[in-house]
Amino acid sequence: MKAEIIAVGTELLLGQIVNTNARYLSAELAALGIDVYFQTVVGDNQGRLQQAIRIAEERADLIIFSGGIGPTQDDLTKDALAASLGRGLHIDRQAMDHVDRFFKDRDRPMTENNRRQALAIDGGTPLPNETGLAVGNAVSQAGKHYIVLPGPPKELIPMFEQQAKPWILSHVLTDETPIYSKMLKFAGIGESALETQLLDLIEAQGDLTIAPYAKESEVTIRLSTKASLESEALDKLDDMEKIIEQRLPEFLYANRDVPIEQVIVEMMTEMNLTVSAAESCTGGLLMEAITSIPGSAAVFFGGIVCYSNEMKKKLLNVPAELLEGENAPGAVSKETAEVLAEQVRIITDTDFGLSVTGVAGPAYSERKPVGLVYIGISERNGATRSIELNLKGNRDTIRLRSAKSVLYHLWRRLKELNAQAD
Amino acid sequence: MKAEIIAVGTELLLGQIVNTNARYLSAELAALGIDVYFQTVVGDNQGRLQQAIRIAEERADLIIFSGGIGPTQDDLTKDALAASLGRGLHIDRQAMDHVDRFFKDRDRPMTENNRRQALAIDGGTPLPNETGLAVGNAVSQAGKHYIVLPGPPKELIPMFEQQAKPWILSHVLTDETPIYSKMLKFAGIGESALETQLLDLIEAQGDLTIAPYAKESEVTIRLSTKASLESEALDKLDDMEKIIEQRLPEFLYANRDVPIEQVIVEMMTEMNLTVSAAESCTGGLLMEAITSIPGSAAVFFGGIVCYSNEMKKKLLNVPAELLEGENAPGAVSKETAEVLAEQVRIITDTDFGLSVTGVAGPAYSERKPVGLVYIGISERNGATRSIELNLKGNRDTIRLRSAKSVLYHLWRRLKELNAQAD
Repeated sequence: MKAEIIAVGTELLLGQIVNTNARYLSAELAALGIDVYFQTVVGDNQGRLQQAIRIAEERADLIIFSGGIGPTQDDLTKDALAASLGRGLHIDRQAMDHVDRFFKDRDRPMTENNRRQALAIDGGTPLPNETGLAVGNAVSQAGKHYIVLPGPPKELIPMFEQQAKPWILSHVLTDETPIYSKMLKFAGIGESALETQLLDLIEAQGDLTIAPYAKESEVTIRLSTKASLESEALDKLDDMEKIIEQRLPEFLYANRDVPIEQVIVEMMTEMNLTVSAAESCTGGLLMEAITSIPGSAAVFFGGIVCYSNEMKKKLLNVPAELLEGENAPGAVSKETAEVLAEQVRIITDTDFGLSVTGVAGPAYSERKPVGLVYIGISERNGATRSIELNLKGNRDTIRLRSAKSVLYHLWRRLKELNAQAD
Repeated sequence: MKAEIIAVGTELLLGQIVNTNARYLSAELAALGIDVYFQTVVGDNQGRLQQAIRIAEERADLIIFSGGIGPTQDDLTKDALAASLGRGLHIDRQAMDHVDRFFKDRDRPMTENNRRQALAIDGGTPLPNETGLAVGNAVSQAGKHYIVLPGPPKELIPMFEQQAKPWILSHVLTDETPIYSKMLKFAGIGESALETQLLDLIEAQGDLTIAPYAKESEVTIRLSTKASLESEALDKLDDMEKIIEQRLPEFLYANRDVPIEQVIVEMMTEMNLTVSAAESCTGGLLMEAITSIPGSAAVFFGGIVCYSNEMKKKLLNVPAELLEGENAPGAVSKETAEVLAEQVRIITDTDFGLSVTGVAGPAYSERKPVGLVYIGISERNGATRSIELNLKGNRDTIRLRSAKSVLYHLWRRLKELNAQAD
């Protein structure tokens, strides 16, 4: 089973937007065991679109389109596909009702061109759009399968998940055993180190594949396996997860696709613990990450950004002798990181106080190198400790890695406390 | 002049990375007046790569490759192109010296496969790689032009800027007048409102094009014009910039591609002013944006994240009667925004105090709707005022728009002060 993705839109060819749909669809198809050999981008032009369809039909069994199904005369994907297949288009009644209702609910007149969003290819399957107006389409002809999806990711992703994927499983992969996947998320370890640790498992993989994906400061592994019975597949995935967890318990923080800050907010809510932060070089990034999680208000009340030495003294009671003078440890030091963490914890009356102080660059400061960062963790009725980081990268990368590193160490400590409580 | 971009790499087809190179190259080619009709992605497979080259030759005059020129046996772009052109490959001496030096400098042995990175197509122009090891290539044959660039953006972008673009100007666009561009950046106005304001200019555009690009909370316009003399082009661009600025002085914040926080840090440094912030619903995002700018330490010393009411009272002296009780204005109110802005300014002894308090969602709070946000600006020896925002979008969007909105209003005020000082 070979697939090709055709993204339609002149804005892609002008470089105004990046083709994240091709990435999303490729990853999803890979997880279904379908090979993508080509991705194509073509503009809003019916001739060139039909040319792209002809080429794709020669080299793929499944062709997925994204974009070009909006209300304007430029939106030509359905027209071009229908023409290529020698089929007509009709207004799908259910899709039309959906469009009508949208305008009625907002008390706005529906203009005629919006009817185009309800167009469906004769003899195909309309794919309802839960988060937008344009209906998708799926159709098979002469052994080839075609799926038309909207361009905006917030419409494409739910439509793929809820409509297109089930259609692929029931109409395209009929002879194939379904694939089941599970995401494992790691922090505190790089992609290559993780691969080295799992090399024997990756090389030995038979009917269960282990595919790593790296993003800045986190690594994801997708486990996939085929099985006719869902329970059988889930058992196999669970077994492999256990093997990996036993090998890397200090890095595996979730078995679903969530950031580490979400796991932390969930754990602390459960454990009835609270946290605050004092940030120097990260300037708010750490607190921003925590508060990006809905429900974080249960565990996070506030914190302080102390960018200057003056603020470290004034808002966080860092003694002047720690910061000033030829032989003082300075703002970027173990000692300052510890005072910051402890003081913010005391000031906000929380169970944990976190801190970050370092040189994010581009210039050196305190004669200390760019990338030298100290993070601090202080616990109520417990110890205050600090960790020295020597980070590579530009200013943005160093700031991000510093924040993620604090979160990683907090997660490890929460895990430890959880284990002790059990 | 028609171009096609061929990105090479199985990691793109597996959805492990997103094709940002195609976006970058498309935007650059558009700025040079070259139409991109197709983008293609193909894996590390010589047969399919040659097939993609054949198809591209039928529909484009200029073919740009990204990726597939590293040291491994999977890196086949140069091999496939040379074979398609019926040419050989040789080791470019200068590129080989560059690779040798790299390993010598690091005291690491150079393995044989690294020689592949110095491969050049016979009769072509090698394009030196300033930020990596693999040399690029440019070659013309039978009226078609081919450029081979590395995959990593940090190598591709400088090589395009410094090597490929000059080659295109001198070898491909020989008969064409060069294109000059200028970026105008706007805040506080949406893309469609901006387009409406400039519609007559956009529609009347002759030899000067006006192309809008929208990103979250900011809009960019690229002005481009052709001229044989650079001075003539720059005059034309300046004239158009003046026309647009006169029309939208309150939204145009820069005539180069920088975020508004950078302009603010530069203006405040120049004006010798300082700023602090008290953030509730944005949780640190505003301060993170300001401190993302190198040199921000000159104008920003610190601030407070006051996520809970308790912290608003304790760290920012918000009176309890403002926050609590049936008829109190509450945390999400004009009054609270103003106290927060004023207090953080006083506590940090800065010229400006900024604040954000609102409902970012997903849940309502204080019986106030998601998207209701108040921002505050307090000035030393001046007024404290607040602005009500009613934002659409999800939690992330509301937080980002809130932070960008405060920055926008601060920028307007700084501009006003600058004008008064003149």
